Amino acid sequence: MSDIDVLISEVGPRDGLQSIKSIMPTDAKKAWIKAEADAGVREIEVGSFVPPKLLPQLADTAEIVAYARTLPGLAVAALVPNFKGAENAVKAGAHKITLPLSVSETHSQANLKKTHAQVLDEVRKIVELLDSLPADQRPDFEGGLSTAFGCTLEGKVPEAKVVELARELIALGCDEVGLSDTTGYANPTQLRRLIKLIWAEVGQDKLTGVHLHNTRGLGLANAHAALEEGITTLDSSLGGIGGCPFAPGASGNIVTEDLAFMLDAMGLQTGIDLAKLLAVRQIVRDALPDEELYGFTPDAGLPKDYSPGGWGIAA
Amino acid sequence: MSDIDVLISEVGPRDGLQSIKSIMPTDAKKAWIKAEADAGVREIEVGSFVPPKLLPQLADTAEIVAYARTLPGLAVAALVPNFKGAENAVKAGAHKITLPLSVSETHSQANLKKTHAQVLDEVRKIVELLDSLPADQRPDFEGGLSTAFGCTLEGKVPEAKVVELARELIALGCDEVGLSDTTGYANPTQLRRLIKLIWAEVGQDKLTGVHLHNTRGLGLANAHAALEEGITTLDSSLGGIGGCPFAPGASGNIVTEDLAFMLDAMGLQTGIDLAKLLAVRQIVRDALPDEELYGFTPDAGLPKDYSPGGWGIAA
Repeated sequence: MSDIDVLISEVGPRDGLQSIKSIMPTDAKKAWIKAEADAGVREIEVGSFVPPKLLPQLADTAEIVAYARTLPGLAVAALVPNFKGAENAVKAGAHKITLPLSVSETHSQANLKKTHAQVLDEVRKIVELLDSLPADQRPDFEGGLSTAFGCTLEGKVPEAKVVELARELIALGCDEVGLSDTTGYANPTQLRRLIKLIWAEVGQDKLTGVHLHNTRGLGLANAHAALEEGITTLDSSLGGIGGCPFAPGASGNIVTEDLAFMLDAMGLQTGIDLAKLLAVRQIVRDALPDEELYGFTPDAGLPKDYSPGGWGIAA
Repeated sequence: MSDIDVLISEVGPRDGLQSIKSIMPTDAKKAWIKAEADAGVREIEVGSFVPPKLLPQLADTAEIVAYARTLPGLAVAALVPNFKGAENAVKAGAHKITLPLSVSETHSQANLKKTHAQVLDEVRKIVELLDSLPADQRPDFEGGLSTAFGCTLEGKVPEAKVVELARELIALGCDEVGLSDTTGYANPTQLRRLIKLIWAEVGQDKLTGVHLHNTRGLGLANAHAALEEGITTLDSSLGGIGGCPFAPGASGNIVTEDLAFMLDAMGLQTGIDLAKLLAVRQIVRDALPDEELYGFTPDAGLPKDYSPGGWGIAA
């Protein structure tokens, strides 16, 4: 990403679609992903390798990964809940896989039906699998620290526990960890503090991205705080759809449109064409007519005489 | 405000009510203001001294100011569009008056029907009036720099113009200037830059507050940026109602509930009891059944096992 300042990682096709009841047709998913890639989005989490009976919305993930790989310049990411999922992700050709490890063990049991020890065992087996692959077929492997800012089931989550699990994930061979505000509990001070603590433990290059929600309206404030701290990858969802079906009341990813506008207005390069990005919304709306889309910039429009690459920077 | 870190200045009874069609009954306004003061809000802009035929929603401002003055510990603020308004505000006993000066002269003409020179002339006369008063009857006088981040009519606004008008307002005798993102165009980088430029011109003690909108979803990100820069007063509106009737598409103040949650979660003292603040919403909802209320925290609720005064700060 040498030519951009911040990587916006679109998670709508995974985090968005998994948490709504409507099932988006495969062709619509392809059209959505293609349109976002055409708008300049460099990374998209396109699905999750979970059993179709658990998440029928994502049953076509292997086909979607294969399709997304044909789009030039796009990094194709997928969620994997366990070793089996990782095997399927590798077969499908994902460039990046993320395994979520809930810092709240209660949430881990609810989400993956596994204790920490059991999840870490899956991580170990996944690393063995990846290490057996030729280098050009090896996906990046991220350990996602879910519920890192608190849990709807357990309440507060000890920061020491987050740091300890980050250390274990890296020690086991994850390329990177991610910080996930699954429940929308994070605030800027907590976020900056936790980033620093994890960096101190595993190194700055092992945590470059955060996954934030907008559950309490703090999504972009947290994104801004993460940027100030030095984070360079921000997850978001087109139309703000999505959340975690096992964390009640925790729906609502950051809205890609609002995030992209904020970054562009700040003069940060994302590679995204705002006008093209805003037009993608119609594809999602047409394919999911019963779902509410969020976001303010799409309704308000860009400022009068807005030109890409900054607003009000040069006087 | 020695015992708090950040002053939340509630502007809903003025900025909120002026931009909606419903007229809130005087008794409901009093109940709203009392409930917010009881929840710990220290400053409320309770109305505007404009001709009732222009804004019938605010025709009872003098009565509201007089009532609000009876609430212990509350700073009672009012908007004044001109000298006549300031006279009435002084008569009513406002603790603070703000005169908006649109940096965009086109917007100034649309909003106040006055050029910059004409508005500055009103400022001069108001200062003369205030200087003639006994010290204990003299309200604080803020010059509000409206459309400071861009204008829906003019587009970009030169930063040099904002700084020049700030200098003139202070030179004429305003106690302070305020920065207003009337149109919801501001971004964190622009905001921090403009704060620094104005401080360099008039001194840090002459700009302590910003008035931000959430028109493009960046409200709390901008609030966070302002805090980082050293701003200590943030305007917001309960339920996010309000905006500027003369700046199309520019509605949407920052939501007081979300702002108060963010600050409290960050461990910053605002003096506000979150549970009591959230309960105020019902008063506004009952009094304005046809108006949409905004905000995420009221729907999502506070985090599980939340305790006031910080979240996730101490591990």
